[in-house]
Amino acid sequence: MTAFADLMAFQRDTEALAQIAGRQEWDQETMMPEGAAEQRGDERAALEGVLHARRTDPRVGDWLEAARAPDEAGARALDLIRRAHGRNAAVPAALASEIARVTSVAQGIWAEARAKDDVAHFLPTLEKVVRLMREKGEALAAAGFGGGNAYDALLDDYEPEATAESIAAIFGRMRPRLVALREAVLGADNQPAPLRGTFAEAGQLKLARDLATAFGYDWHRGRLDLSVHPFSSGSGNDCRITTRVVEADPFNCLYSTIHEVGHAAYEQGIEQRYLFTPLGAGVSMGVHESQSRIYENQLGRSRAFTGWLGGKMHAIFGDFGTDPAGAFYRTANRVAPGFIRTEADEVHYNLHIMMRFDLERALFGGGLEVADLEEAWNSRFAKDFGVAVDRPAHGLLQDVHWSVGLFGYFPTYALGNVYAGCLHKALRTDLPDLDTSLAAGDARPATEWLRDRVQRHGGLYKPAEVIRRACGFAPSESPLLDYLEEKFGAIYGL
Amino acid sequence: MTAFADLMAFQRDTEALAQIAGRQEWDQETMMPEGAAEQRGDERAALEGVLHARRTDPRVGDWLEAARAPDEAGARALDLIRRAHGRNAAVPAALASEIARVTSVAQGIWAEARAKDDVAHFLPTLEKVVRLMREKGEALAAAGFGGGNAYDALLDDYEPEATAESIAAIFGRMRPRLVALREAVLGADNQPAPLRGTFAEAGQLKLARDLATAFGYDWHRGRLDLSVHPFSSGSGNDCRITTRVVEADPFNCLYSTIHEVGHAAYEQGIEQRYLFTPLGAGVSMGVHESQSRIYENQLGRSRAFTGWLGGKMHAIFGDFGTDPAGAFYRTANRVAPGFIRTEADEVHYNLHIMMRFDLERALFGGGLEVADLEEAWNSRFAKDFGVAVDRPAHGLLQDVHWSVGLFGYFPTYALGNVYAGCLHKALRTDLPDLDTSLAAGDARPATEWLRDRVQRHGGLYKPAEVIRRACGFAPSESPLLDYLEEKFGAIYGL
Repeated sequence: MTAFADLMAFQRDTEALAQIAGRQEWDQETMMPEGAAEQRGDERAALEGVLHARRTDPRVGDWLEAARAPDEAGARALDLIRRAHGRNAAVPAALASEIARVTSVAQGIWAEARAKDDVAHFLPTLEKVVRLMREKGEALAAAGFGGGNAYDALLDDYEPEATAESIAAIFGRMRPRLVALREAVLGADNQPAPLRGTFAEAGQLKLARDLATAFGYDWHRGRLDLSVHPFSSGSGNDCRITTRVVEADPFNCLYSTIHEVGHAAYEQGIEQRYLFTPLGAGVSMGVHESQSRIYENQLGRSRAFTGWLGGKMHAIFGDFGTDPAGAFYRTANRVAPGFIRTEADEVHYNLHIMMRFDLERALFGGGLEVADLEEAWNSRFAKDFGVAVDRPAHGLLQDVHWSVGLFGYFPTYALGNVYAGCLHKALRTDLPDLDTSLAAGDARPATEWLRDRVQRHGGLYKPAEVIRRACGFAPSESPLLDYLEEKFGAIYGL
Repeated sequence: MTAFADLMAFQRDTEALAQIAGRQEWDQETMMPEGAAEQRGDERAALEGVLHARRTDPRVGDWLEAARAPDEAGARALDLIRRAHGRNAAVPAALASEIARVTSVAQGIWAEARAKDDVAHFLPTLEKVVRLMREKGEALAAAGFGGGNAYDALLDDYEPEATAESIAAIFGRMRPRLVALREAVLGADNQPAPLRGTFAEAGQLKLARDLATAFGYDWHRGRLDLSVHPFSSGSGNDCRITTRVVEADPFNCLYSTIHEVGHAAYEQGIEQRYLFTPLGAGVSMGVHESQSRIYENQLGRSRAFTGWLGGKMHAIFGDFGTDPAGAFYRTANRVAPGFIRTEADEVHYNLHIMMRFDLERALFGGGLEVADLEEAWNSRFAKDFGVAVDRPAHGLLQDVHWSVGLFGYFPTYALGNVYAGCLHKALRTDLPDLDTSLAAGDARPATEWLRDRVQRHGGLYKPAEVIRRACGFAPSESPLLDYLEEKFGAIYGL
């Protein structure tokens, strides 16, 4: 065999083992008996040990040096392996294992602190995590990742090629228009009514399955279960999704299902020949989020689709006091201030992200220390959202990300919205009759377009390149902002 | 660290990875989307590769040479690792991988042949499997396993210390008494009525859960799901069971649940300090089957327990024409001739096993060739069961075992029944009031006794030694035969 074939065969087994590790996480969140938690930790550590040894195996370096790619996909696969191998090699083994040890404990401490609204309980741990992640960022930067910048070197793990500067420029243009839109919407006279009533679990789950089908989710290669936090899991032919049910808030179940179907559709849509190669998964967190967001918002919360959804809800749950043909669309798009990012509407969501992004950057080279983080959070929140944080669980302690060392991850959520805005503009141009399908509860023409333009390529193109090829224009925040202003302007009569 | 500590740390990770492999099989049979089958094969192969490399790692040999055990459990762990390592080392790598390759295909061919009742479709494959397993047996025998006998060397994998000769002696004493009992029972005037009616799935599953609870299954460390063939899976704190539902035959669901609870109770009952060591699993297939069988038959089909079960069934399914206090016990223990081993009653079951055992031995050194196997099966079946096999799916093609190379496995089922007979005798002596609990639907006193005498020890003692210690007498077939003659003599008025 050639070095290329040897490397790809080795990589296939590594990717296959990584799929098993992912499925163990799925099992842990959906199926695992409670009493197995501790044992499971040992099992996962054993498998992580195997994966780590493979990812840092010195033979990979030798193969990379000798390998010649036979085609474009092969060249890209080599690039991705080289990048991952270089990142692993740049972080000292002692630091990597210290990060693994500290973050595995930190998540539990964060959860305790959040439950008790006790920031002081969490800060010493967060300080350790930030210190270790700064060290990691610096080690990566010293090896040339992130253009020599520590925060960019971390960001590079989730959104390759993006930099804090480029993201800050986009966010800088978005913020004033979002703040203005938010103020106009909240000040409008004619506010949509919130949804009221109790919506039985069985009906919500039945409808969640119908929604997944409506968006083209392939049940032959997936399944839907319940978990505390909805997520999608797996690549290739085993892409599973989860949802949750709150009987007073069916939108929680229904729109998180559509969101996870977006993630799963990306993975299910990747060409089969990329399976178990570095091209066999979504290319970045931002592009992944673009799929979940366009499904959830631009399509799932469109006037056409909510017309169908409102009718379905009336058929399943009976009259719940909202006219399915008219008021329901406004109710499904109701803008309301709130503390919690994951519950935010389309107008508020990116403001939550921008705040986290700015705080992260300040922690990494901007002079902010963990001891001052809560005050920084609260004062920024008051400024952007016009209300004071009422308790730490609604403020600094609301997200798990920082406790497990995910710095550089948050901005990819907003980047996903920006990409979704671009894709939606191009998709509507190509499919002028899409609303006819959506009004009939069929979003599959949109999935087909996204599959052809984005999903099937997996990791073949770099993130911004995927979007540019799909849309025919370079990614920009303008389509998203235009869409939001037009949509909410109409809903609120601005 | 000492060599002993190094070896045990290495072994812990191997055992943890083996747990993950087992859970992937569980997932495949219960949760996996259909379309993931091929991908899953690659994933399992990757993990098997990791496990195989660890099990044949040359460092294990070095550690074994240098290690000194600190105590009895440590010494036994070393013995078990030494034995497994020696077995792996004795089989040439090329032969091991050829067996893996051929048997993975053979199972599919067997399933096709069974579906089409086409023995000729299966025989060439079975010939290959038998040839490879003979080679494996001879390689193991040459290394001293099985006392130098090829069949015993295979048997040794499932029931260490047992030999074909010792099993043949037991079976030779059992067969005449079983044949005589079978003839007397089938010739009796007063035959129990079979169960009639349709029993809805939801009710069966509810009752299956109640039964698991009645036998002390620990739901905190397990769960119950549906699969095509019932099985139990996992060790330590994650022991899962499955069942199946046939609406016309609720005993299928109910008694297979009790059977799997027996297997799971064994694993759940093992002392926590043995987790992820070679002592952290049941010691042999025979002892494992003794647990499932005593739960299912001696306890689950007892007059006292069926009194409670019949009442529960009437409460759940309404009147199904069988008096729960009287006739139900006879119906639940009805003896009927049949072709299928897995559906056989207590009187017939061991006759099915003995036939397979004799045919296996004839294939391994007794001069029987695969080409003549069907005829040998059919003529022996006619002799022992008094009827001619009506189709291959009811004869030679009924069991999966031989297609995947499981030679030496069948006799452990009957050995399990023998051990169950011994344990039941000792348990009834120690717990004279057990029937009072069983009549109230509570079999937990029996589970407590079995946990203390058998289950908690895991792999600490050799199979026959576990039974001897638990019962206070050496294992023998007499208690089982006495129990069967007394029980069915009373039911059939002999």
